[in-house]
Amino acid sequence: MNPPARTRKQRTQDTLDRLETDVDVWVSTADSAGGTPYLVPLSYLWDGTTVLLATPAASPTGRNLRATGTVRLGLGPTRDVVMIEGTVRTLEAGELPEGTGDAFAARTGFDPRGLSTRYQYFSVTPVRVQAWREVDELSGRDLMRDSAWLVAD
Amino acid sequence: MNPPARTRKQRTQDTLDRLETDVDVWVSTADSAGGTPYLVPLSYLWDGTTVLLATPAASPTGRNLRATGTVRLGLGPTRDVVMIEGTVRTLEAGELPEGTGDAFAARTGFDPRGLSTRYQYFSVTPVRVQAWREVDELSGRDLMRDSAWLVAD
Repeated sequence: MNPPARTRKQRTQDTLDRLETDVDVWVSTADSAGGTPYLVPLSYLWDGTTVLLATPAASPTGRNLRATGTVRLGLGPTRDVVMIEGTVRTLEAGELPEGTGDAFAARTGFDPRGLSTRYQYFSVTPVRVQAWREVDELSGRDLMRDSAWLVAD
Repeated sequence: MNPPARTRKQRTQDTLDRLETDVDVWVSTADSAGGTPYLVPLSYLWDGTTVLLATPAASPTGRNLRATGTVRLGLGPTRDVVMIEGTVRTLEAGELPEGTGDAFAARTGFDPRGLSTRYQYFSVTPVRVQAWREVDELSGRDLMRDSAWLVAD
């Protein structure tokens, strides 16, 4: 038998813990012309408010993120997921806040600033966050709506 | 240190084994109007050729799959992934081949035929398949192109 469904407060804490400790996230994007999805796992840096990604500027994910400004992220194993819908801001390496490039490299184990391929950074601001494990947790899965956590700190 | 990069033959075998043994897959779709991605984990049935999914007809994934006929699937943990681009055929429960509805229920642990919500089945035919673990496996990640496995049986 599964454990009982978690409270919203517990799920919010588990979600923040996962964002802090996980290294990779599934990144789902769509082309602006319509109909073509793209999906790839990427490493990220979480600063408590935004998810920072980096990918080649010319990759499908890079093109889609720049063109649409929208992303859907999936974290965790499929039976303990966190889903994030977010808005995306594109940043060149030179536009990163002081120390962020180094923090990204330390966290992810790769530093796009040293590569010959042109990378861009993408800062994702969560707008909607959901978390669930099994079917019994589908109810009450919304943790953030319109960029506001439903459970206060 | 990581183990050496796998051969294409080994990756193809690992991919077929994963399709056979995994239960859930990340399903990435796009809306037909353009720009809005959707991502959700779903359980599936693999019959050796196609990936069978089921989701509510009115869900974002159901709408997108019907409208675009295109999907990108991700299997496995983020450091041992299988990526599948596929074409999608929508099926009502009554259109499933004999025994497939039962096989789907046995495999996934849920039977959409008994639910009050209207579900549809979606049969995904892989067109392109890739698999990699770490960066050293990005080269040689293509296992299927234009619906043909690059390594013969």
